[in-house]
Amino acid sequence: MLDKLKEEVFQANVDLPKHGLVKYTWGNVSAIDRDSGLFVIKPSGVTYEKMTAQDMVVVDLDGRVVEGELNPSSDTLTHAVLYKHYPQIGGIAHTHSTWATIWAQAGLDVQAMGTTHADTFYGSVPCARFLTEKEVNDGYEVETGKVIIETFEERGLDVLAVPGILLQGHGPFTWGKDAKSAVMNSVVLDEVSKMNFFTQKLNGLAEELPQRILDKHYLRKHGQNAYYGQGQ
Amino acid sequence: MLDKLKEEVFQANVDLPKHGLVKYTWGNVSAIDRDSGLFVIKPSGVTYEKMTAQDMVVVDLDGRVVEGELNPSSDTLTHAVLYKHYPQIGGIAHTHSTWATIWAQAGLDVQAMGTTHADTFYGSVPCARFLTEKEVNDGYEVETGKVIIETFEERGLDVLAVPGILLQGHGPFTWGKDAKSAVMNSVVLDEVSKMNFFTQKLNGLAEELPQRILDKHYLRKHGQNAYYGQGQ
Amino acid sequence: MLDKLKEEVFQANVDLPKHGLVKYTWGNVSAIDRDSGLFVIKPSGVTYEKMTAQDMVVVDLDGRVVEGELNPSSDTLTHAVLYKHYPQIGGIAHTHSTWATIWAQAGLDVQAMGTTHADTFYGSVPCARFLTEKEVNDGYEVETGKVIIETFEERGLDVLAVPGILLQGHGPFTWGKDAKSAVMNSVVLDEVSKMNFFTQKLNGLAEELPQRILDKHYLRKHGQNAYYGQGQ
Amino acid sequence: MLDKLKEEVFQANVDLPKHGLVKYTWGNVSAIDRDSGLFVIKPSGVTYEKMTAQDMVVVDLDGRVVEGELNPSSDTLTHAVLYKHYPQIGGIAHTHSTWATIWAQAGLDVQAMGTTHADTFYGSVPCARFLTEKEVNDGYEVETGKVIIETFEERGLDVLAVPGILLQGHGPFTWGKDAKSAVMNSVVLDEVSKMNFFTQKLNGLAEELPQRILDKHYLRKHGQNAYYGQGQ
Repeated sequence: MLDKLKEEVFQANVDLPKHGLVKYTWGNVSAIDRDSGLFVIKPSGVTYEKMTAQDMVVVDLDGRVVEGELNPSSDTLTHAVLYKHYPQIGGIAHTHSTWATIWAQAGLDVQAMGTTHADTFYGSVPCARFLTEKEVNDGYEVETGKVIIETFEERGLDVLAVPGILLQGHGPFTWGKDAKSAVMNSVVLDEVSKMNFFTQKLNGLAEELPQRILDKHYLRKHGQNAYYGQGQ
Repeated sequence: MLDKLKEEVFQANVDLPKHGLVKYTWGNVSAIDRDSGLFVIKPSGVTYEKMTAQDMVVVDLDGRVVEGELNPSSDTLTHAVLYKHYPQIGGIAHTHSTWATIWAQAGLDVQAMGTTHADTFYGSVPCARFLTEKEVNDGYEVETGKVIIETFEERGLDVLAVPGILLQGHGPFTWGKDAKSAVMNSVVLDEVSKMNFFTQKLNGLAEELPQRILDKHYLRKHGQNAYYGQGQ
Repeated sequence: MLDKLKEEVFQANVDLPKHGLVKYTWGNVSAIDRDSGLFVIKPSGVTYEKMTAQDMVVVDLDGRVVEGELNPSSDTLTHAVLYKHYPQIGGIAHTHSTWATIWAQAGLDVQAMGTTHADTFYGSVPCARFLTEKEVNDGYEVETGKVIIETFEERGLDVLAVPGILLQGHGPFTWGKDAKSAVMNSVVLDEVSKMNFFTQKLNGLAEELPQRILDKHYLRKHGQNAYYGQGQ
Repeated sequence: MLDKLKEEVFQANVDLPKHGLVKYTWGNVSAIDRDSGLFVIKPSGVTYEKMTAQDMVVVDLDGRVVEGELNPSSDTLTHAVLYKHYPQIGGIAHTHSTWATIWAQAGLDVQAMGTTHADTFYGSVPCARFLTEKEVNDGYEVETGKVIIETFEERGLDVLAVPGILLQGHGPFTWGKDAKSAVMNSVVLDEVSKMNFFTQKLNGLAEELPQRILDKHYLRKHGQNAYYGQGQ
């Protein structure tokens, strides 16, 4: 069942430690098959060394296990809420990558201070608020998904133009057209989080990238007339 | 004698440089067999490249060598004091890992500023005081163990809920149910030490994780109704 | 066509991730054959794992593809402008390497604060200004090359004595006699960018390297009477 | 000629990039045969990938090549001055390792702020002054050695108890009983340089390690009654 997707999700999960984004079993990546409305996600707490593609768990959009011997990631319901609300998303990644988590712990947005950011994120990556006591009790993982949606709606952001968010005191979620691009966006978010920390310490007066450069870099890669890459 | 435990302790020691926690022969991990009251520890000053499982040294709870050709770690008596006082501990790790040592040198507790911390430590990781002149002279390693116990008692901390400590001017000790989890807790402590440094430099007003989130993350992994992992 | 140069350019591109200067497909290296007036450059957006020497693209000094199935790097025109203006340059590298990019985002020159710098760069590495709205619209990549030239001319710098520059809000370009030395200069620029950040935070009064030491180190390696290396 | 020493020096040089202390051909390690009064040193500017033990160069205490096809390290005369003045030294290492170089560029001593430092260096690692114009002109490498000696004499330091120094604006030299221990001391110096930077930024009031702990750690490893290691 969904064997090709399982392989993709497995590879994307394995890429997390390869890119230095996670240690041990931290982090989880999923990808959805829109035809069946089912998504594939990493099992909970299994070490990357032992994990195989067949250990990936198939769940429905309410987070119920459809196939698989193992418990799915404890964050499965957050993924489900996002897939349900955003049909344009194909893959989701969650990590506690060092630098993005530092910004999440500081409770601050990651502004676009360079073209490395602009090549992937069309403007600031927002930091969502803490969950309330009630939200934690009502269902931590579902409510986490809702707070992500709330943040994007309040700020009027396009979920594909800004494919990631920080959860205060927690860490980043990123997404994309598939599992692989979700992971790539985690890599970029961590790197720009690192760069921004040191940029601001180096020059407290450093400003955000001018709009004209932000536009140029984002659009030459993602716009209608994009000319980056091989036009896949 | 205790061959399985030797293998586990050997692997856990080898994991220290693998996780970037130590260089050369720095650091030591042990694990105890509660039935015999003996524990197994790394030999002193042997390089990881040459070390084998059979080089691990078996000692009793007074730190006397029971089996083994090599001298045990120079920190053996600190391990012994902790095993004697805390029957709930199965493994202990000591390193000079960069970021935890930085906090130890600064003489400061590592507060819970994010869920990465809350997934493992239920509140601040304390920094113990320097040993006095008398304690250094009376027996540095034994007294180090006693200062660890003193710190946990004065603060009323549960040694399993907060499985680690910093020794001022020195570095971290962590522990767990076995050697492997002791090392894992060292990895987490180093990572949150790093994150906290930069979080506080990024936002001097950043606060500790709200109690509700600390509870949620710690308890979904370690509480009675834990639902993280595969329920081992 | 230009097979030897393709192999050199391919190897130099592969060296970028090996030295930790780029992630994924970021970055690009080229080298020129001055006899034919053609240069070889990395294709755009192709992963390093899949890339072969035969994927390198041959272009002329106006950036037109002369041979190759793939689109050349989106920064090809910047390389072309530099090769046309500076006949003494044989290879060019562009990355978003972490520390050089931090200085680029801060909009600051990287001063010569140590002999590591002086061994490669004879004085400060300049940070060029942002492109204007008009320049972005007229042709971003060509104008980027022109702003590099403008910066060197305004400051009266020798392009071989200072083989690199930062583009504000973007990242570094470096160059050299060939592709390999262009990459080496990127490695040095990133390292001295890192060192300078921490030097200035450690001691706000730290000064630039005295002229006599700058001269000594630069000239013992690059001067007429250089005595570093094997005299190739 | 001195084949065993060549192999040791070769291995010690190869260890520099392995420990992340150097990039490319930066850095050099040597070791001396006190019987013949000759020392073996890395050739200048040869890449570590191509280097073999037989490429090591044998020189006398005036830095003249006795055997070897290649030019010796450009820093050979600094090594020679130190070997001549300090008969107790068996090996010397020079790098531009990131963190030690940062302190050298800042022109500051590296104080003993933790036991990681105390395990190797019995007190602060001094930072030597810049060379004067005259010294640079008289013979940069010889005078560098003399300034190292001057610094140790002025401060009344024991070259074995403090087996390393920083050269202002340049980087560290370390030494030891042989090439291997010289490299190990470089690793320690870089690590404590890193820790000290962040310790002081974390807590501006953090003090040096109390004398009683410095004594205990240094002496349990290097004192007459040392009990660390296997008593080699």
